[in-house]
Amino acid sequence: MPDEDGHPSPQEMSLQVVLTALADPLRYAVVSELLRQPAGTERTCASFDLPVSKSTTTHHFRVLREAGLVRQVDRGNSRAATLRRADLDSRFPGLLDLIAAES
Amino acid sequence: MPDEDGHPSPQEMSLQVVLTALADPLRYAVVSELLRQPAGTERTCASFDLPVSKSTTTHHFRVLREAGLVRQVDRGNSRAATLRRADLDSRFPGLLDLIAAES
Repeated sequence: MPDEDGHPSPQEMSLQVVLTALADPLRYAVVSELLRQPAGTERTCASFDLPVSKSTTTHHFRVLREAGLVRQVDRGNSRAATLRRADLDSRFPGLLDLIAAES
Repeated sequence: MPDEDGHPSPQEMSLQVVLTALADPLRYAVVSELLRQPAGTERTCASFDLPVSKSTTTHHFRVLREAGLVRQVDRGNSRAATLRRADLDSRFPGLLDLIAAES
């Protein structure tokens, strides 16, 4: 079962769910941007400055989190997201490389 | 430019468009089924027996064709689809392997 914050383990991740999460252009852009930064980089949702409301931003990050693409942790007043590189590379070898190659 | 039937060349394919095409469960199932068959297998749209109308089936195959996932050719009264394995393997190395590993 996913943990209390909705993070699936690598074994619980589904390729189809991950592809659906990436099919949205804003969510794809978030993953692509995290990929261009050093591994382990923490970013708040607000720092991506997505052209949508705060609640829609929250929704997009929930989809990314529940698919297993990002891990979110509480940092005081906000939540910080990191890309789950190692987990994704082990569960779906080559997927992040494909996205990195496109950006 | 894509050819007159809407088939993009490998260079024209977009990962985001391909991921969006694969995000639909029926389209994902078509690709997954073609992957389980010998390379070059031709299948008519009707042979997949998708639980949707004929026009919706046609729509799904158009999305797959325009993304570059399948090639469709006229075969008398119907169109046959083949998976563009070599093109996809060269443009997005490892993507089809990920899908094959899940099925």
